[in-house]
Amino acid sequence: MTARKIGVTELVLRDAHQSLMATRMAMEDMVDACEDIDKAGFWSVECWGGATFDACIRFLNEDPWKRLRTFRELMPNSRLQMLLRGQNLLGYRHYEDMVVDKFVEKSAENGMDVYRVFDALNDPRNMARAMAAVKSVGKHAQGTICYTVSPVHTVDGYIKLAGQLIDMGAESIALKDMAALLQPQPAYDIVKGIKDTYGDIQINVHCHSTTGVTLVSLMKAIEAGADVVDTAISSMSLGPGHNPTESLVAMLEGTEYTTDLDMERLLRIRDHFAGVRPKYKEFESATLVDTDIFSSQIPGGMLSNMESQLKAQGAGDRIREVMEEVPRVKADAGYPPLVTPSSQIVGTQAVFNVLMGRYKVMTGEFADLMLGYYGECLAPRNEEVVELAKAQTKKEAITVRPADLLTPEWDELVTTASKLEGFDGSEEDVLTNAMFPGVAPKFFQQRAEGPKSVAKTPEQVAAENAQAAGPAKGITGPVKYNVTIAGRSHSVAVEPA
Amino acid sequence: MTARKIGVTELVLRDAHQSLMATRMAMEDMVDACEDIDKAGFWSVECWGGATFDACIRFLNEDPWKRLRTFRELMPNSRLQMLLRGQNLLGYRHYEDMVVDKFVEKSAENGMDVYRVFDALNDPRNMARAMAAVKSVGKHAQGTICYTVSPVHTVDGYIKLAGQLIDMGAESIALKDMAALLQPQPAYDIVKGIKDTYGDIQINVHCHSTTGVTLVSLMKAIEAGADVVDTAISSMSLGPGHNPTESLVAMLEGTEYTTDLDMERLLRIRDHFAGVRPKYKEFESATLVDTDIFSSQIPGGMLSNMESQLKAQGAGDRIREVMEEVPRVKADAGYPPLVTPSSQIVGTQAVFNVLMGRYKVMTGEFADLMLGYYGECLAPRNEEVVELAKAQTKKEAITVRPADLLTPEWDELVTTASKLEGFDGSEEDVLTNAMFPGVAPKFFQQRAEGPKSVAKTPEQVAAENAQAAGPAKGITGPVKYNVTIAGRSHSVAVEPA
Repeated sequence: MTARKIGVTELVLRDAHQSLMATRMAMEDMVDACEDIDKAGFWSVECWGGATFDACIRFLNEDPWKRLRTFRELMPNSRLQMLLRGQNLLGYRHYEDMVVDKFVEKSAENGMDVYRVFDALNDPRNMARAMAAVKSVGKHAQGTICYTVSPVHTVDGYIKLAGQLIDMGAESIALKDMAALLQPQPAYDIVKGIKDTYGDIQINVHCHSTTGVTLVSLMKAIEAGADVVDTAISSMSLGPGHNPTESLVAMLEGTEYTTDLDMERLLRIRDHFAGVRPKYKEFESATLVDTDIFSSQIPGGMLSNMESQLKAQGAGDRIREVMEEVPRVKADAGYPPLVTPSSQIVGTQAVFNVLMGRYKVMTGEFADLMLGYYGECLAPRNEEVVELAKAQTKKEAITVRPADLLTPEWDELVTTASKLEGFDGSEEDVLTNAMFPGVAPKFFQQRAEGPKSVAKTPEQVAAENAQAAGPAKGITGPVKYNVTIAGRSHSVAVEPA
Repeated sequence: MTARKIGVTELVLRDAHQSLMATRMAMEDMVDACEDIDKAGFWSVECWGGATFDACIRFLNEDPWKRLRTFRELMPNSRLQMLLRGQNLLGYRHYEDMVVDKFVEKSAENGMDVYRVFDALNDPRNMARAMAAVKSVGKHAQGTICYTVSPVHTVDGYIKLAGQLIDMGAESIALKDMAALLQPQPAYDIVKGIKDTYGDIQINVHCHSTTGVTLVSLMKAIEAGADVVDTAISSMSLGPGHNPTESLVAMLEGTEYTTDLDMERLLRIRDHFAGVRPKYKEFESATLVDTDIFSSQIPGGMLSNMESQLKAQGAGDRIREVMEEVPRVKADAGYPPLVTPSSQIVGTQAVFNVLMGRYKVMTGEFADLMLGYYGECLAPRNEEVVELAKAQTKKEAITVRPADLLTPEWDELVTTASKLEGFDGSEEDVLTNAMFPGVAPKFFQQRAEGPKSVAKTPEQVAAENAQAAGPAKGITGPVKYNVTIAGRSHSVAVEPA
């Protein structure tokens, strides 16, 4: 029997450093690994997305479009893959359809192949236009299921959602587990259910490793028929990141599945990033494994956000109350998956509820969520809270696709961008400013200065530690100095009093 | 359908800190967790073994027998479990049978319940007496298969070994994977094979997590019928340690298996050790995940040993040659599993072969291994090398059980111990000195001074870092001192030239 080949999407160039080091990795730390990545035999190479785009212009003075073109040039044999937030593109609001079309067209031109299109609420209407745009430029449109756990989320529901994505033209389905909540049994059941229901549609499974259990989930997903799974090279794996690529290879040895990856190249990729990772240590979280989310249902990042909001209000001791409030707020909103931006919206409202009384003050974003401006959730929203949202915002609830309310905006986006210092006249720049209007103008201004890595060499780190460890406060042992007082030089031994 | 209950052996008190922090954890850092460990619902609590015994008297000035009695007192509801190196007991040589009997009798008296009996070469003759002794004091005798990978180690061979252990009276079989080499498919095949062949004998599976793949192996072992698996609480897990207990619980949720562990207690145990672990940071290895062993067949600890031996000889650049020599030496010796002490014996000989010519100089231990003084390996030894060993040592090869050559030694061990300063007259002390004659005398002398933890508080660590970061070399900014020269006091500002 020939072993069934399991495709692998390597995450090191996007989600791995996004999850482990706050998306700070500079292009110069990736370039030397690209040939091995290109030739190792991956199904695709994930290398672009909202956070990496944002970090490029916010922290690294890198043009993200140029980064994409460099990847394209350095990895001519690979499918380049990106994460696309549906109608939000890489930004935080809904864009009018023509902007969606433009973004897909330009990213495809610059080298993108596979678009993993998702929506935080799993509302298919928010993914439809992006999927159609991807198909119209002849690229791979992957429809995404964001996995979460709630009283209304069921295996059957996920299977149904997969059907909607297939009807929309999805060439493959991604099961995306951003919080490492996907346990082995549901992983098996969902993949099996989709295959049994819709025939041999390609299924990609993406899990984080935070809870320590998801490599087993990948195994069960593969047993159920999954075609491609996502991993990160071992030196950039685990913790809030992903399962190690080499462990996946080892896991399948001797089974009826194989990855056919080139182990020699994997080891070189590993060694390369083993040298890179320490340079970004200051951005790393200390989390090694954390299973709390199974009981709290609150992703780690959301928890730390709420904690800092509380501390800023001098109410750091009320985190327990907020954690108990979150499930209620989530239920009132119709059980949105807790992922960017819904996790922030629900979390902040839970903090407000505890500090100021339940729904006494609503954030604009939470009101919009309650009124349908982010799309539909799986369960109905709490009508009382909807009425409060209407009253506080003087806005009406909507049931249409949010982007249907938008009027064409491309020409205006061009006009806005063209007034900016440093704008290069390209449609890429128009899109950059459209998606990150708070960051792009400054980036355009200083772009000519070139990339500014925030990585630190071991020597820099040692020097900073020495600095932080307390010099300038004084000395701890006897030291000899030559000291000149009143014109006369003295050899002096000094020690603490 | 009722889910099948999977037993769990919690490793935090023995193998977890042995693997993660060089066995340095002091009893005072364990005591407060014992009640929760006792009541969490574990099948057994591993808490004693050769390395913990050694570390107690070598580094911590703790009496290991007293530690055992304390565990017994603090965990009255638990099966206490230990790792017993067969005829070697906790030491590094073969002991005469009566000493084996005495050790088992005294450890049972002091509170031990489950004895995991193993031999580095998987030679059943080296396990027989210890197993019989355990049975004769009415305790649980667990026969152990050390898992390794070689051209002569097969699933069928492991199944056959299990049969020998069962014939010897094993109440359960442990499949012990000390190098994280056990991949999911062989885990399944071996467990399934043992169950199919011998009926419902209890099977315990012990895996390290170094290669990142073994939680999947535990899953497959469970699917094949394994009854008990070993894990460590998450705050003391991963890297060269073990899979996290809470991840195992999560892994089985929704499946046809369950652990029935008390999650509240697990979280308290986790929080306790999350506070302890940083205090031993200086002993931790940096390894997060390492799959090299699948290709090199050389455990990480063995590799670093060989590297330091080479460096000591100014030949640090010859590690590649040594790594290529190891498989040959291993084959010549009949493919011993590479675990203490065989890993050191084979590794050192490989270093000698590279530096001085193949088998030009043989270590005494390697010659003994070639001549049968450690027992039998699975494959025949290389006859040419056996002849060289005879010639160099003037010893004959043996085929009997090594301990059969020993004469009764208990009385002499008593006499030797009773001459030591600080000997307390107990048979426990006789055994301590018998197993660690190089360490026990000094320990007896200073035992009265009580435990000396090597843990460091965050404050101590910070102070040391500040010290190491360079003060006493001088200052980096202007500092004011009162300086007295020739009897007159001056207020002086000092800054680097």
